Amino acid sequence: MAVISMLKVNSDRLNRSIYQLAEVGKLPKGGVSRRAFTPEDLLARQLVQSWMVEAGMTVRIDAVGNIIGTYAGQEEVGALSTGSHIDTVPVGGRYDGVLGVLAGIEVVRVLKENAIRLVHPIEVIVFTDEECSVIGCKAMAGNVVNDPEYYRRNDGTSIQTCLEQIGGDWSKLATAKRQPSEIAAFVELHVEQGGVLESTGDQIGVVKGIVGQHRLAVTITGRPNHAGTTPMHLRKDALVAASKVVLAVNELATQTPGEQVATVGYLNVAPNAVNIVPAKVELKIDLRDLSQTHLDNLIEQMREQFAQIATATQTEIVMNQVLQVFPTLAAPKIQTAIASVCQELGLSYTHLPSRAGHDAQEIGRFADMGMIFVPSDAGVSHAEDEYTSPEQCTQGANVLLQTFLQLDRLYSC
Amino acid sequence: MAVISMLKVNSDRLNRSIYQLAEVGKLPKGGVSRRAFTPEDLLARQLVQSWMVEAGMTVRIDAVGNIIGTYAGQEEVGALSTGSHIDTVPVGGRYDGVLGVLAGIEVVRVLKENAIRLVHPIEVIVFTDEECSVIGCKAMAGNVVNDPEYYRRNDGTSIQTCLEQIGGDWSKLATAKRQPSEIAAFVELHVEQGGVLESTGDQIGVVKGIVGQHRLAVTITGRPNHAGTTPMHLRKDALVAASKVVLAVNELATQTPGEQVATVGYLNVAPNAVNIVPAKVELKIDLRDLSQTHLDNLIEQMREQFAQIATATQTEIVMNQVLQVFPTLAAPKIQTAIASVCQELGLSYTHLPSRAGHDAQEIGRFADMGMIFVPSDAGVSHAEDEYTSPEQCTQGANVLLQTFLQLDRLYSC
Repeated sequence: MAVISMLKVNSDRLNRSIYQLAEVGKLPKGGVSRRAFTPEDLLARQLVQSWMVEAGMTVRIDAVGNIIGTYAGQEEVGALSTGSHIDTVPVGGRYDGVLGVLAGIEVVRVLKENAIRLVHPIEVIVFTDEECSVIGCKAMAGNVVNDPEYYRRNDGTSIQTCLEQIGGDWSKLATAKRQPSEIAAFVELHVEQGGVLESTGDQIGVVKGIVGQHRLAVTITGRPNHAGTTPMHLRKDALVAASKVVLAVNELATQTPGEQVATVGYLNVAPNAVNIVPAKVELKIDLRDLSQTHLDNLIEQMREQFAQIATATQTEIVMNQVLQVFPTLAAPKIQTAIASVCQELGLSYTHLPSRAGHDAQEIGRFADMGMIFVPSDAGVSHAEDEYTSPEQCTQGANVLLQTFLQLDRLYSC
Repeated sequence: MAVISMLKVNSDRLNRSIYQLAEVGKLPKGGVSRRAFTPEDLLARQLVQSWMVEAGMTVRIDAVGNIIGTYAGQEEVGALSTGSHIDTVPVGGRYDGVLGVLAGIEVVRVLKENAIRLVHPIEVIVFTDEECSVIGCKAMAGNVVNDPEYYRRNDGTSIQTCLEQIGGDWSKLATAKRQPSEIAAFVELHVEQGGVLESTGDQIGVVKGIVGQHRLAVTITGRPNHAGTTPMHLRKDALVAASKVVLAVNELATQTPGEQVATVGYLNVAPNAVNIVPAKVELKIDLRDLSQTHLDNLIEQMREQFAQIATATQTEIVMNQVLQVFPTLAAPKIQTAIASVCQELGLSYTHLPSRAGHDAQEIGRFADMGMIFVPSDAGVSHAEDEYTSPEQCTQGANVLLQTFLQLDRLYSC
């Protein structure tokens, strides 16, 4: 085992592949626009598949278009799986998703060139459309909404057409679902997309879990009135009520013990005229935490406070849940493995929640899951100036490689 | 004088004229759409001019298109003037403006049929475009912006073309300016457009003055961040800061002694995405009061509080004045005359500020000014269901008639 524990990824090869993939859909300032199902996405998928084949993997496309590269193991047991996505937001960066896929391929390259076969097969997965519908990982978890209209694109294209373009087939979607026995453990390497590692100064993040996310739509109804002629005490000002709601949400998130985040990112005023007392405000709350119980408590507190605000402002406040993604905790033994690898490699690390969603969140619903984070420069992601240095990418890939070696032993016991 | 003091307007005739004028630009639910310079406005102007002539007035159109009907007096002295406007907002009511014009004509009809000539000439004025540019009364006060582009309509039509359509002439605008000696007193009857009279149960409002109006544009700049991955303490949330601004404005207006009103009616969030911490908020404050000193104090307090909010939220807050209309106080002797007329007629009344702008605001800058309010049902105006009962319209017109009779004596001393 001494030889294996000294294995390292080829940093140049890894970073070259990151730069090569960034040429597909490249934007003027160095970012990438490669939305799922676009010609750029199709081209990138071809490129990645060719690299998988070169690395010695057999490649198959499942019914939802996920690309699954397999590097056979010594035994026909559940795989050690990794991967992420290569689609981007409309104006995205070069690392989000891509690092996880290409580090997975690099791990296999290293094993192949050292003629190493683990006990477990290794899978590298490119999940379909992580940035929009999240349909790829959801199909593997059997959580796709059974209505193609739900997945119709904004430009009107049906999901059937989209999937056909990438070798999938909506009518056979159920076949994309994986059995728990097929995946022994799933480990996703990803850029942090936040500023925690940069603020703590750590090189690696050992993810404790992926937060649950609740989105709540709040409608506040007051009464439109002339802003000049209506005395203050006769008003039912929906924006005054909404401002109290925004501050209540912010104070709950900042003053409740815990790691929750809560944001009002969207707020629209009607009629939104300078001389009319606002009649209606619609706003949306995004609330995330690792603990579902904690999320439920926070929402309950919001309901109570909003009712008080409605009474105080003589408005009506209605709150509806519009999205609910349950948290997924990382398997303790994968977290322990990642941490011990960091110690062996002399890399500083910290445990932290992932507050963004990832493909690992769905895979973690039926298989042991873990995630490795590397720092994002200034915490920036989903932007052209998203940046993680070549050295940091390499460190993350080495942690992934060594974690797989450890897990291969752990999951063989 | 006993006969004169018992004079009453013809209620049926007055209300019939209100209903007839409401046919021009009539909307399905009974409201009126008669924006200035539209075919509907032109038709209404013809109708009103014909009524003025029938009532024994000589009619002239000044360079800004104001219609000025004059019922000669016994002497060539400054006029007792009244009037208002007959243009409406895009979806307006039947009483806003119209009542003041038609009550003025009715007052002249009553004088004519009783063969009464006052010492002073009586003028009934239809001011051009009160609802949008306010150019008619401003031209009389000599306060028109000397740039035709400033008055170009949203549809691209030049103000020159607009004025030509109604018999005006932009190039001769200076001739529309009135000398203080031409108008002894101006009294405008108008629907309240607010709910004060309804809440006090009074039949007549004696207007203390027309409030000054300040509009302030506030830009709050924070930092866009991922709503999931950015811990609460690392945020610069522009909407949290904006919410504090909205509440500060509201608290200043509700808790400072006085009759001021302040409103944030317009607020836009950028990028306004549920999963992005707001980077920028633009909002507009509308602030009104009868005292310019009080307005200045309130704005100074806002500046101080906004600076504190900026520090507390780590945002930048910039405030700019975008509109400033100075208050105009009603002449005390006109207020006294209106109040004494109410007592003589057995009508309950209260003194109140006008918090909406009116043509009288500009005329009051160079002549003694007063206003008479009658109640607006539920305080509603600028809407199809604006309503003031025929009886209330008649009461207002009778107060106008008797006030003119009093002022004719007062201003002859």
